[in-house]
Amino acid sequence: MFAGVSAFPLTPVRDEELDEDALGLLVARAAEAGVDSVGVLGSTGNAPYLSVDERRRVVERAVLEAGDVPVLAGVGALRSTDVVALALDAADAGAAGMLLAPVSYHPLTEAEVLGLYEDVTSAVPLPLVVYENPRTTGVTFSDELWRDVAALPHVVAVKSPGAPGGVGAARDRVAHLRSLVPTHVGVGASGDAVAVAALAAGADTWWSVLAGVAPGVAVRLARAVRERDDALVTALADALGPALDLVTRRGGVRVAAALAEHRGLVDGPCLPRPLRGLDGAETATADAALAAAERL
Amino acid sequence: MFAGVSAFPLTPVRDEELDEDALGLLVARAAEAGVDSVGVLGSTGNAPYLSVDERRRVVERAVLEAGDVPVLAGVGALRSTDVVALALDAADAGAAGMLLAPVSYHPLTEAEVLGLYEDVTSAVPLPLVVYENPRTTGVTFSDELWRDVAALPHVVAVKSPGAPGGVGAARDRVAHLRSLVPTHVGVGASGDAVAVAALAAGADTWWSVLAGVAPGVAVRLARAVRERDDALVTALADALGPALDLVTRRGGVRVAAALAEHRGLVDGPCLPRPLRGLDGAETATADAALAAAERL
Repeated sequence: MFAGVSAFPLTPVRDEELDEDALGLLVARAAEAGVDSVGVLGSTGNAPYLSVDERRRVVERAVLEAGDVPVLAGVGALRSTDVVALALDAADAGAAGMLLAPVSYHPLTEAEVLGLYEDVTSAVPLPLVVYENPRTTGVTFSDELWRDVAALPHVVAVKSPGAPGGVGAARDRVAHLRSLVPTHVGVGASGDAVAVAALAAGADTWWSVLAGVAPGVAVRLARAVRERDDALVTALADALGPALDLVTRRGGVRVAAALAEHRGLVDGPCLPRPLRGLDGAETATADAALAAAERL
Repeated sequence: MFAGVSAFPLTPVRDEELDEDALGLLVARAAEAGVDSVGVLGSTGNAPYLSVDERRRVVERAVLEAGDVPVLAGVGALRSTDVVALALDAADAGAAGMLLAPVSYHPLTEAEVLGLYEDVTSAVPLPLVVYENPRTTGVTFSDELWRDVAALPHVVAVKSPGAPGGVGAARDRVAHLRSLVPTHVGVGASGDAVAVAALAAGADTWWSVLAGVAPGVAVRLARAVRERDDALVTALADALGPALDLVTRRGGVRVAAALAEHRGLVDGPCLPRPLRGLDGAETATADAALAAAERL
């Protein structure tokens, strides 16, 4: 499940209130551009910053706008009881699956992380994507933890940062993850600067921030990878390079917000405070890179 | 403000519901033992795991039980609008001050951290303790950030991890922090294994997890430091050593929960899931260390 390009849009706010219409536009654009799934309330969707009520409205609106494209809903929260409640809400609202990272304040032990996934999978029978994000959660999964979590019921895929170092390194990483998870569990990579290499190396899914704000380019890049059009893959990746470097250095959410504001897809500032987007020079760099890719 | 020993109790849950009576007992014990302030909803108080309503009830109960002892209320949350709402609630409920760490999901930039403190101090005129906790927030304050934040209105004290390396290192650290903040701002240390050295080195406050669960020993240790009873300071610190090592390795919240459960101060398990306490051997080690200190 959730193979191909999975687009992770922002959850825009306007004057600190959820901007449902802007979210709806982002989801509809991604679906129309041909992404394979839409992942709302991921890290780029700022899930932990939103209330339970806001999160339910986001899933409902996304399901409405996505049409036949399946919607994956982030259900991460600090407290297990909240995660279960969010997962039940996501299922009620029509999400095709849930995405769960071990959101932490006190850095979690591996036993605590496993317990969280056990609690949720035993309470909510919704397809689950296991989400490793060391940058935001502080948790790096050991091989043993991957084995234990991926073997739980309802797990359908994993979302893990791609390996830097090109297609060779990506192939090693994908093979290693496949050796840890059951064969029915898909393996996908996040981190747009390296996830394309993972796709070229045989990963099932590109979990993509870029596809949330520029779905046309992301879909075209993924298709070029699938068709082994190496010249186009290289040209697109080179053009996008400065934008993807900014994603690595400044965080995908800030780059996506700056691009969405600059291009008039949302009313800025669209991030909940204290988060802020990029400065003017960075925004110009990201926009120029994206525009160059769009011209190819 | 908030000089001396500031006790940071747990916020116990029972079957995942806030256990107000157990919280009240912990606060009352600390106040009776002679701590100088009580800090509810700190990291040990699991603030980010609790709802706005639960947090308001915690402050109200703590103020009731603490009597004349001032109550400091943690107001940390991911979103600035939530922080401001929590700060207003804390003021309404009778807190003498608020404690704010830059709680993060996306690692915050220094401009974002400063913006958070600006938003809160401009909206809520309650004395503020600025709280640096790299372990839980991922944010380490630069010298420039300390200068900018500590100069904001209403800032009365800072809470920063003590420096490892004994009284000499602690003296350097306290002097460095004092050079960065206005003279009316108190400087205090957290991290029980090193904070006692900071107190001996002239810090104004020992922000103490130990005092939340074993206030008698903490007050006695702080008094021995003040009276320069080096023999008793050394004996108490040596006795407590194995427990304080566990605080460093496993996190204060897990050690405090294990001790409180083992000693019948709370009904176990008292931490919100996915958090768990210590295993049996670790609990025995912590309890034996505390008992040894209590016999001195």
